[in-house]
Amino acid sequence: MKFSHRDRALRFRELHTDGRVLVLPTAWDVASACLIEDAGADAIATTSAGVAWSLGAADGNRLGRDRALDLVARIVSAVDVPVTADIEGGYASDPDGVAETVRGVLAAGAVGINIEDGDAPVPRLRPVEEQCERIIAARRAADAVQVPMFLNARVDTYLLAVGDPVTRLRATVDRAVAYVDAGADGIFVPGVTDPETVSVLVREVPVPLNIMAGPGAPAIGELAELGVGRVSLGPAIALATHALVRRGVQELLIAGTYTAFAETMAYGEVNALVDRPKETGDRPLPVENEGAEAQ
Amino acid sequence: MKFSHRDRALRFRELHTDGRVLVLPTAWDVASACLIEDAGADAIATTSAGVAWSLGAADGNRLGRDRALDLVARIVSAVDVPVTADIEGGYASDPDGVAETVRGVLAAGAVGINIEDGDAPVPRLRPVEEQCERIIAARRAADAVQVPMFLNARVDTYLLAVGDPVTRLRATVDRAVAYVDAGADGIFVPGVTDPETVSVLVREVPVPLNIMAGPGAPAIGELAELGVGRVSLGPAIALATHALVRRGVQELLIAGTYTAFAETMAYGEVNALVDRPKETGDRPLPVENEGAEAQ
Repeated sequence: MKFSHRDRALRFRELHTDGRVLVLPTAWDVASACLIEDAGADAIATTSAGVAWSLGAADGNRLGRDRALDLVARIVSAVDVPVTADIEGGYASDPDGVAETVRGVLAAGAVGINIEDGDAPVPRLRPVEEQCERIIAARRAADAVQVPMFLNARVDTYLLAVGDPVTRLRATVDRAVAYVDAGADGIFVPGVTDPETVSVLVREVPVPLNIMAGPGAPAIGELAELGVGRVSLGPAIALATHALVRRGVQELLIAGTYTAFAETMAYGEVNALVDRPKETGDRPLPVENEGAEAQ
Repeated sequence: MKFSHRDRALRFRELHTDGRVLVLPTAWDVASACLIEDAGADAIATTSAGVAWSLGAADGNRLGRDRALDLVARIVSAVDVPVTADIEGGYASDPDGVAETVRGVLAAGAVGINIEDGDAPVPRLRPVEEQCERIIAARRAADAVQVPMFLNARVDTYLLAVGDPVTRLRATVDRAVAYVDAGADGIFVPGVTDPETVSVLVREVPVPLNIMAGPGAPAIGELAELGVGRVSLGPAIALATHALVRRGVQELLIAGTYTAFAETMAYGEVNALVDRPKETGDRPLPVENEGAEAQ
């Protein structure tokens, strides 16, 4: 008996339906993923922006499928908790290509995806029928390998601020419902945090609603009270580390001091976190004796 | 006319001999390198520990040559300032392998290396003659492609705390002198920051002395007054970002708030930094008209 890929996928699905809000800190490399797991997160999401910056690309579908999947695989192999991958627009021009990306995500060991209807870097929204075809292709690719992947469909109406503001909420709900009909398990509307709009979305969207939070957004507890099912951090964590690097290096170069870097971890702590033996994957867990430590 | 690889290597050498201390902030991915360059650094060093953690390996010669060189190439291609690569022990068991690594570093566009005599993860020091052979091989590999690479030889006597403490300083100087005779352009003694020992090293080592600094170390100005030629940050910057991630994610999961991440950069700022057109490499610079903007 072991935690199989399918087990992790089921566990990730459960986290959306256990009555508690699922909080997903976002990782962009193996170190950040290990730190997030160690801090107690139930699952990890990747941030496409943070990943792209770390690897040397701007955000917005410029990273490419291979580099994106390589990073997902590295993160999955370093942690035990379920990982969901932000695959931007699917790294493909057509539904077959999206399916190919999803097969790669699952081969890398992830158990969920975010797929967006914004067609960055243009920016424009894909027509709803086109996006539904892409979601159907993604769903089928996961079903074909019998992994109950959580498909989180992102609606970029607010993030890209496209269309008439008066009808934006209506258009968002219409897209969300269409995406659910096409096979989405969750709906993600980044760019919305005001309680009134969130409440309407919670009421009108028939699956868990994902909100993107970070500095300036309502606290997790407030979002949970509104009925939000899932909160992810987008690029907020990566951006905070970038701000620290910038401020600290400026201090180093101008004043010649290191106070910005004074809050630190021990070298050995991070080494041990990255090197920690994994409990999932192909390694058997001692399920007969739950008191025993995992090998 | 353009900034060739050779031009950047010469520029990097000059930075060690212009009478000012060379301050090298350390990068572990493309984002950190771009932020460091934007903050005004004259050059960038990679941190092997930060790189290894980011990519999913513990520090100490476990990353492997290919992954290390791939990261160096990504960083070099994203910045205009000279980049020096920490290649740990050389990612090879013999001098020919070290030469192969150096060829890879230069092919990636870097203009300097750190090569250490500590044989992690054992930990032990390589015999001085063995390390000299490795340095000679590295030097010849650079000379063969006519790149005046800055070879910074690391002496790990203090970092690994090996040998008799009474004779450690003597052993360090002896190793440094032998490495310079073998072709080192600089000597790096991490683990030493106390003014007395630093002063002895400055006096006894006939090339620029590199000290590793960070929180708790004397300020850059104090090290410069002692005669230190180069100060690098080791894993200090990466470790500070790790501490921020850990603290912020704990806050997120326990309190449901985001105050640790409140100091942030704008999404567009980081996107623009990573996407900035480069001035070096194969793109010609308008040297005839210095007032014109680079294309």
